[in-house]
Amino acid sequence: MASKLGIVAGGGEFPGLVIAACRAQNRPFHVLALSGHADKAVIGDAPADWIRLGEAGTGFKLLKQAGVEDVMMIGPVRRPTLRELAPDFRTTRFFAKVGLKALGDDGLLRAVAREIEEEGFRIVGVDDVLSDCLAVPGIYGTYLPDDQAKADIQRGREVAKGIGALDVGQAVVVQQGIVLAVEAVEGTDAMIRRAAGLKREGPGGVLVKVKKPGQDRRLDLPTIGTATVREAATAGLRGIAVEAGGALVLGRDAVRAEADRLGLFVIGVEGD
Amino acid sequence: MASKLGIVAGGGEFPGLVIAACRAQNRPFHVLALSGHADKAVIGDAPADWIRLGEAGTGFKLLKQAGVEDVMMIGPVRRPTLRELAPDFRTTRFFAKVGLKALGDDGLLRAVAREIEEEGFRIVGVDDVLSDCLAVPGIYGTYLPDDQAKADIQRGREVAKGIGALDVGQAVVVQQGIVLAVEAVEGTDAMIRRAAGLKREGPGGVLVKVKKPGQDRRLDLPTIGTATVREAATAGLRGIAVEAGGALVLGRDAVRAEADRLGLFVIGVEGD
Repeated sequence: MASKLGIVAGGGEFPGLVIAACRAQNRPFHVLALSGHADKAVIGDAPADWIRLGEAGTGFKLLKQAGVEDVMMIGPVRRPTLRELAPDFRTTRFFAKVGLKALGDDGLLRAVAREIEEEGFRIVGVDDVLSDCLAVPGIYGTYLPDDQAKADIQRGREVAKGIGALDVGQAVVVQQGIVLAVEAVEGTDAMIRRAAGLKREGPGGVLVKVKKPGQDRRLDLPTIGTATVREAATAGLRGIAVEAGGALVLGRDAVRAEADRLGLFVIGVEGD
Repeated sequence: MASKLGIVAGGGEFPGLVIAACRAQNRPFHVLALSGHADKAVIGDAPADWIRLGEAGTGFKLLKQAGVEDVMMIGPVRRPTLRELAPDFRTTRFFAKVGLKALGDDGLLRAVAREIEEEGFRIVGVDDVLSDCLAVPGIYGTYLPDDQAKADIQRGREVAKGIGALDVGQAVVVQQGIVLAVEAVEGTDAMIRRAAGLKREGPGGVLVKVKKPGQDRRLDLPTIGTATVREAATAGLRGIAVEAGGALVLGRDAVRAEADRLGLFVIGVEGD
């Protein structure tokens, strides 16, 4: 029997996919849902405790009480300031160690992961339960990028890698060579919606998501799902490119079907 | 008598400041206003011709008819796609030379400047008529950045330079170490308004604007004015940092007064 999985759940639909996969595989699990981030409707009736982001001490205690050995972090978490965090003793000790400046930094995630491991848990990536979710090279559905879209993908990769190296975001929208929008803390969906208002006439743009250089593949990989495909279609984009081996496509068959239904391409492209 | 100045006017209030400065200095001038970008209320009753962005041939002819020798480009221009541009013969010849990919690139601006010079005009920067508008090091008003704001400025410079090196944008908003927003084609004012919806509790963020590495100082330097100060205040920012020698502060005394009135700092910081 597989060890019990602790699912630290942030926002969006993705924690729900992990919960469903655990159930399908009879894998025992327990959710630690982050208040203000995780969606009650997504967590549903899964066994779960709700904590604030600043309650690391309570979180570790609850995971141990639940008999969890492995921990997975899934779903976006809006980065808080220290004041919003209202850290408990355990959380404060953590920041005393890593330094407050980690708050504004994706280095934070790595520090959190290290801290979880020091508490005796093992960090696992989403692909531990969702097999085949790591993006593969090539086309997902039936639509293909044309030459303009390929050029936009190339420009998007270059810019997204640069933004990632600055530890700012993972995604950009490019149309006909013009970078319409760059992701910071607003998240990919909000960025796609913004791009809709900035688009030019002519062939639509592409969404490009890549992992940050040196990013731990178990942590916060750029992720797309069917909702991303729908947002992209609504914004008039022609397709989505993700980094093969450096991004997650959650629900591969559903993504493929949704892309075909809406006439978008979804493609896995090589990293650098 | 100073030579006649051709003012190629994009959007916003800045062309109006240049027109006012020419009048104050009795400097002869003629405006070439770009339809869909320049604001009729800002151009007012100044001597002007209106052309589309794609009408380079007409533009050159009109400038010569007006007896213009120097040309200044001022005010943001929303980057068009080729289809929107509907280029005339002269414009098409230009793109045949520089390549279509320049359309999505700030290299475009340099290519345009070269083209204008090959037509026999001299390109001049805004500081040719607006003296003292190049940002100087140090504080503009009476408010000073505290340590948190200084750290945010430092992070903002690093990220804005990185974005600039990718030829994407010139401005970012940083709050407590978190990059709230990165500028692409939406322009600085829209980015500031977006940051308002993304801000965290606690001390507000800062707007940082720097020139792109290698950017020609006569062309499209990052610019702030009183409207920028008001946008920043409305968005809950605590101040603005611009690159000394690499940005324009249009209407220095007015900017200083507005910053003091609204309780913001405005500071010129060293480039790299």
